[in-house]
Amino acid sequence: MAVVLTNQGFVASEALHYPYQERGLQFGDGIYEVIRVYQGRPYLMTEHLDRLYRSAEAIKLTIPFDKEHLRQQLLALINENRLTEDGLIYLQITRGSAKRLHLFPDCEPNFFAYTDKLARPLEQIKTGIKAITKQDIRWHYCYIKSLNLLPNVLAKQEAFEQGAFDAILHRDQIVTESTAANVFIVKDDVIITHPATERILHGCVRNRLILLAKLNEIPVVEAYYSVSDLLEANEVFLTSSGIEVLPVVEIDGKKIGTGKVGVMTKSLQDLYQRDAGLK
Amino acid sequence: MAVVLTNQGFVASEALHYPYQERGLQFGDGIYEVIRVYQGRPYLMTEHLDRLYRSAEAIKLTIPFDKEHLRQQLLALINENRLTEDGLIYLQITRGSAKRLHLFPDCEPNFFAYTDKLARPLEQIKTGIKAITKQDIRWHYCYIKSLNLLPNVLAKQEAFEQGAFDAILHRDQIVTESTAANVFIVKDDVIITHPATERILHGCVRNRLILLAKLNEIPVVEAYYSVSDLLEANEVFLTSSGIEVLPVVEIDGKKIGTGKVGVMTKSLQDLYQRDAGLK
Repeated sequence: MAVVLTNQGFVASEALHYPYQERGLQFGDGIYEVIRVYQGRPYLMTEHLDRLYRSAEAIKLTIPFDKEHLRQQLLALINENRLTEDGLIYLQITRGSAKRLHLFPDCEPNFFAYTDKLARPLEQIKTGIKAITKQDIRWHYCYIKSLNLLPNVLAKQEAFEQGAFDAILHRDQIVTESTAANVFIVKDDVIITHPATERILHGCVRNRLILLAKLNEIPVVEAYYSVSDLLEANEVFLTSSGIEVLPVVEIDGKKIGTGKVGVMTKSLQDLYQRDAGLK
Repeated sequence: MAVVLTNQGFVASEALHYPYQERGLQFGDGIYEVIRVYQGRPYLMTEHLDRLYRSAEAIKLTIPFDKEHLRQQLLALINENRLTEDGLIYLQITRGSAKRLHLFPDCEPNFFAYTDKLARPLEQIKTGIKAITKQDIRWHYCYIKSLNLLPNVLAKQEAFEQGAFDAILHRDQIVTESTAANVFIVKDDVIITHPATERILHGCVRNRLILLAKLNEIPVVEAYYSVSDLLEANEVFLTSSGIEVLPVVEIDGKKIGTGKVGVMTKSLQDLYQRDAGLK
C-alpha cells in the first residue's frame, strides 16, 4: 500500500484527509513542486527544493523544516513506496487548517508528498504534439509555483477539447509559457525563450537546458517573442519535468517548420537524456 | 454540535474531511459564495445563488442539483444549526476528488456549506476604516468567484501589517476593487464605481446598492476612475456581504474628504439597512 509523507511522518495514502477548513482548499493558499524520478532516482531535486523555498518566501510561508531534512525524507519516501521505475514526487505545502479568514492564521502549515509511477512520453517525444494559442489570463506572479491553477486547468482542458496536447499562452501577443511547461522557439539556429521574469515559472528543466545548450556552444537567447514569431519559427518545443523536451509540430492548425521534429530539438533531447542519465 | 451540508446531506462538522487528491486543494478548481444572514434570515440569497451558477458555468462545472433544491437545503442548514443571530452561510463546490491531472476528471463535484455567527462591524460602519492601495496582480476573470484567492490573501495581509483594514487594488492606476469588496467613490454628489466587466466581482451588495440609489434618484455612474480620483474623492466606501457599506476615511495615510464619514455614505448605509430589514 502506498504511503504519503506528511508533517507527522509517513501515513497510508487512504488515511490522509484534510478538514474542510483548510487554506489550500478554500484559498489555494500554498505552493507545490513536481520532481521527476527516473528508475527510482530523482532528477534536478536540488533545483526543485530551492524553488520550493523561494516560492514559500514569496508568499510569506515559513516551511517548518530545512531543505536537507526534506531531501532525506523524500528519498525515504521513494524507498518506502519501492518506486524503482520512472515516476514523480508531488509535494505541496499550504498555510494550514484554520477557520476561514483572508488574514494569515496562527497554525502550522500542512505538508504532504506522494510518489507515483509516470512513464516517459516516448511516442510524443519522438513525433511531437499539437498546440493551440490562448491569451494568458493568469495572475502576475507566475514565477511562484502556487496552487492557484484554475486558469491553467481551463486552458489545458480547452486545448484537449480542440484535439491539441497543450495551450501556448501569450500576454498581448508576447508568448509566455504553456499551461504547465516553458516554451522555446528555434529561429535561424538560435534558441529563444521568454526571460525569467515574474510572468513565467522559472522551470528547472528550462534552466538546465539553457545551461546544457551554453556548455555545448549552442546559442540561447532569453528574449521576448511574439505569437507570429512562434508560428513562423523553424522549430518549437516545450520543457517540463513530465514531458522533458517535447517537440511542437503544429500550432493552431499550422505546421511548424517542416511539420516534423527539427534537428535542433533532437540535439537538445539528446543533451537532456544524457544529463538525466537516460542514455 | 454544528452540522455542514454536503452532497451526501448533513454531516457533523468535525467529520467532514477531504482526501489529499482533491481538485480544490491542488488546483483551487472550484467556486464559492458567502451569503449574509441577519437574525437567521439570509439576505440577497437569490442573487448569490444566481452568481454561483454563473461562476460554475464560467469554469465549465456542472452543479449536480438545481437552484431551488439548494435554496431549500441552505434554509434547512440554518435551522439545523439554530442560527438565529447575525451570521453567514459559506458554500463552495469543487470539481471533485481525483488523481492529479490538469484535465477535467470523471468524478462528482464536492460541495459543502456551513454557517457561522458573524456580528455586524458596527464600529467600523460608524467611524470608517483605513486602506492602502496596491497593484491588482490577479488573473483576468475576477468576475468568477473562484477559489484562486492567493493574491487577495497576500494583499489583505499586507494591508493588515501596515495598520490598514484593506487594500484597494488598481490595474495600471485604474481602481478595480479591494481584496474582498467593491469600491465606490463620491465626487460632486455623483457615485462612481468600476463597471461590471470581467476584471471585478459583480458584487451582490454592489448591484443592490446601485439599484437602491437609482430608485432614490441618487446619481450612480459605472465608469473607470484612477487612483488619483480615489485619493481626491469627497467620499470612498467599500461594499460586501460581510461589511455592508463601509466608509474609507484614509488611504495611503491621506485623509479622504474631511476624514470623517460623508453624508452620501450615510444615506446609502441608511438605504442598505432599510433594504436588509435592519431598521
